Amino acid sequence: MNGAESLVRTLVAGGVEVCFTNPGTSEMHFVAALDRVEGMACALFLFEGGATGAADGYARMADKPASTLLHLGPGLANGLANLHNARRARSMMVNIVGEHATYHRQYDAPLTSDIEALAGTVSAWTRTGTSAAEIGRDGAAAIAAARTAPGGIATLILPADTAWEPGGGIAPVPAIPERARAADDAVRQAAEALASGEPALLFLGDRAVRGEGKRIAARIAAKTGAKLMAMQANARIDRGAGSVPIERLPYPIDQAIAALAPYRRVILVGATRPVGFFAYPGKPSVLTHEEAETLTLATPEEDQIEALERLAEAVGAPAELALPAVPRPTLPGSGRLEDDAIGQVLGALIPEGAVICDESLTTGRNFFAATHGAAPHSWLQLSGGSIGVGIPLATGAALAARDRKVVNLQADGSALYTAQALWTQARERLDVVTLIWSNRAYAILRGELANVGALNPGPKALGMLTLDDPPVDWVSLARGYGVEARRVETLAAFIDVFRHALAQRGPFLIEVAL
Amino acid sequence: MNGAESLVRTLVAGGVEVCFTNPGTSEMHFVAALDRVEGMACALFLFEGGATGAADGYARMADKPASTLLHLGPGLANGLANLHNARRARSMMVNIVGEHATYHRQYDAPLTSDIEALAGTVSAWTRTGTSAAEIGRDGAAAIAAARTAPGGIATLILPADTAWEPGGGIAPVPAIPERARAADDAVRQAAEALASGEPALLFLGDRAVRGEGKRIAARIAAKTGAKLMAMQANARIDRGAGSVPIERLPYPIDQAIAALAPYRRVILVGATRPVGFFAYPGKPSVLTHEEAETLTLATPEEDQIEALERLAEAVGAPAELALPAVPRPTLPGSGRLEDDAIGQVLGALIPEGAVICDESLTTGRNFFAATHGAAPHSWLQLSGGSIGVGIPLATGAALAARDRKVVNLQADGSALYTAQALWTQARERLDVVTLIWSNRAYAILRGELANVGALNPGPKALGMLTLDDPPVDWVSLARGYGVEARRVETLAAFIDVFRHALAQRGPFLIEVAL
Repeated sequence: MNGAESLVRTLVAGGVEVCFTNPGTSEMHFVAALDRVEGMACALFLFEGGATGAADGYARMADKPASTLLHLGPGLANGLANLHNARRARSMMVNIVGEHATYHRQYDAPLTSDIEALAGTVSAWTRTGTSAAEIGRDGAAAIAAARTAPGGIATLILPADTAWEPGGGIAPVPAIPERARAADDAVRQAAEALASGEPALLFLGDRAVRGEGKRIAARIAAKTGAKLMAMQANARIDRGAGSVPIERLPYPIDQAIAALAPYRRVILVGATRPVGFFAYPGKPSVLTHEEAETLTLATPEEDQIEALERLAEAVGAPAELALPAVPRPTLPGSGRLEDDAIGQVLGALIPEGAVICDESLTTGRNFFAATHGAAPHSWLQLSGGSIGVGIPLATGAALAARDRKVVNLQADGSALYTAQALWTQARERLDVVTLIWSNRAYAILRGELANVGALNPGPKALGMLTLDDPPVDWVSLARGYGVEARRVETLAAFIDVFRHALAQRGPFLIEVAL
Repeated sequence: MNGAESLVRTLVAGGVEVCFTNPGTSEMHFVAALDRVEGMACALFLFEGGATGAADGYARMADKPASTLLHLGPGLANGLANLHNARRARSMMVNIVGEHATYHRQYDAPLTSDIEALAGTVSAWTRTGTSAAEIGRDGAAAIAAARTAPGGIATLILPADTAWEPGGGIAPVPAIPERARAADDAVRQAAEALASGEPALLFLGDRAVRGEGKRIAARIAAKTGAKLMAMQANARIDRGAGSVPIERLPYPIDQAIAALAPYRRVILVGATRPVGFFAYPGKPSVLTHEEAETLTLATPEEDQIEALERLAEAVGAPAELALPAVPRPTLPGSGRLEDDAIGQVLGALIPEGAVICDESLTTGRNFFAATHGAAPHSWLQLSGGSIGVGIPLATGAALAARDRKVVNLQADGSALYTAQALWTQARERLDVVTLIWSNRAYAILRGELANVGALNPGPKALGMLTLDDPPVDWVSLARGYGVEARRVETLAAFIDVFRHALAQRGPFLIEVAL
């Protein structure tokens, strides 16, 4: 077998089952090898940002890496923004990036660029293959790197000759270290902080916001009076009826500072220190109270569940906890088609087991609170602030969880970054309902313009934040990509069409006029 | 004035008249400054790849830099693929990339990334601003860097506090060195090569393929018997009736090798050495005959026109030359809607002064030869092999040349990378006709799959090269972005609708069914 086939066989043997791709000439041997080898499904995207965002969504739901196949530096560049998000989500991923043959690079052909420099900005592990005989081993090392806690992006650059020359066979994946155990001192100090009498917060991220982590944290809170809060952006929160309701740190900086103001002890559990999403003149970078002490119970690299269990034991938390009953919202009977009513509809209609991919931004600020009592579901967020993740994320999540309904809550400006991924939803017959919040503006930036102190914007500035000339017609766009779509302009029509979309299978887009 | 305003005023004073942008929070002070300052038009794009590709098209037609305004690392990343193309076209450009405030970077907020590493892969000049007092001077240095021959990308990273703190005023642009003069030895050696009796080729690129360069080269050829050929991809060739017809190096490697095989002296004039676009098993990287000697008359950095003049004098070329009369093609009366007929239609209907933005790829291999006798026009190509440049390029060219009709010859697979730029065409009422070659495949890759020796592809490989499930409906897509569109399926309908599109003003898209 050639190098490409040894790499594909190594990936399949290592548990990588899907390849998200937009390939080019330099990847043709890998493509040909995918043809010959069983066990790796291929999902084609019209743009690499779709492929990388989908690989992120897949990893968040499957808890294992998919591969991507990208075309040299520009193909990787097109995927970088969603790789940035995946890096912040700590998603496992193995990128295969084609490169000119080793002997051809020196000639600086038009597509030559510094792929390693690009890869380095998002990858926990980067390697350029040097020979076909070694490329299988390189692939196995990439899998191991991607799977090493807390999970990360491994990028293997594949020169064309390392793909077409005779390869070295299937390589076994090296042993993957278990998640590190949090230090005993960290548990002791957290317990002391909780016993200090000062108002305390357990600030949760990473695996600590899945169901089990929240349950243990709630037991600790019940005993100690500490409060719970999740990070502003989380890769995946499992929530809804039967799980612990937990609020997130708000995005707007003044609200975030206010939310953290009561606490003098902030204990990080899989979370990073709460800092401003942006800097603003005259406002702090660190959002905790200036007298607050911040401690780390467990880093994202460490076993947060096990650390929480030890902390629960240290503080004498109860073994069981009755969850507060959060009633499922009922459908609003009447009213305008606006944020609060939409949140209520989501709370009432989110189906059991749904995966919610949330890139709602301004429109969705209240959706999380409105859905604590919804049927059990997973909630995936924009994790790195790089807009354009929602449609790809939903696509990948649907491929990882074909038996679960995926609902993509999607701001319109962000959706326009990577709308091409709708085509892949149609191609793969994925069960995704996309709700486009069509306010025809970069609404978040209107607020930010004021936040940075730039008041009274003129027509040129406002023009750069407005998408209504011409208005984007989402029904036409979706149909262009082969996805059925409807526009709704009233609350009753929204409920009606959303119910219809949930009841059928396959991709469906609803443009919600706001 | 604050730093942002000092930067905007410096750019305007330095002749930068347009800003191609998709801004974010960290750029809000720059946006606010654009509002207050006269002289900088703003063109909003729904995706940064549109903005950077448009800045490239603008630079190719205006011969001066535009600015872009991009949102931190991810915004730059989204623009990188077309920046790669712009780098290969040697287009002048000043990128302003927002960044977190200098003091905020250390907190690793979600959008933090290594912007300098990204910028370095495409920029001739990169600098991160350190203070508002200096940011105007940084901007002036960026303009000088962009304008220094042969033209390049200057990237200024703008931390938010260097935008909002008090600035240092308008800075003058440093003196820009003139293009270097080619060495006397280079002229002498080229003259000797032309006198050697060996078959010789003048291989032209950069400014040497504009009208004047080609005319001088043709005079040299008339005297010496040398042949002329342009690079495979050229930033801009001015051509059509009244100019010297010149073929380009073919893209397919076997054809390229055959085209260069006759020559034993290859003289580079603004061109780079002809090498394989990709490496292929068993085929050479350097495409010239193995006994050919390659010389450089003038590098892209040097004054190619002046060097050609000296060479013409050295060989005793005639002062004037009657151009061969290339008849304008007539419209085909009947036949199928296929490549050759389309080329004939283009030759007949390209309007005088048109700007042709060509990302036709496989479909358009014969278009260039078919249009030597068309009305005078400029022809802009995909210069760096990173697909998705056509629609943005046409958008920027139209903004630079509002009195010229722009015709975008556009492969469908590539168009799907950056179709959002159609919206900017509608927003800016740009006079662009987009012809989509709708073959619903990555046709180029089907050939490449065979070229790399991967014969008999199976369904999985073919599936990755095929875009017909579902078929992309370009009329719906264009309308979604506010652009009028029609699909044509016969030659007669194509001629009819293309004529209509040329006769009206404003953006129009024709999906040409192949």
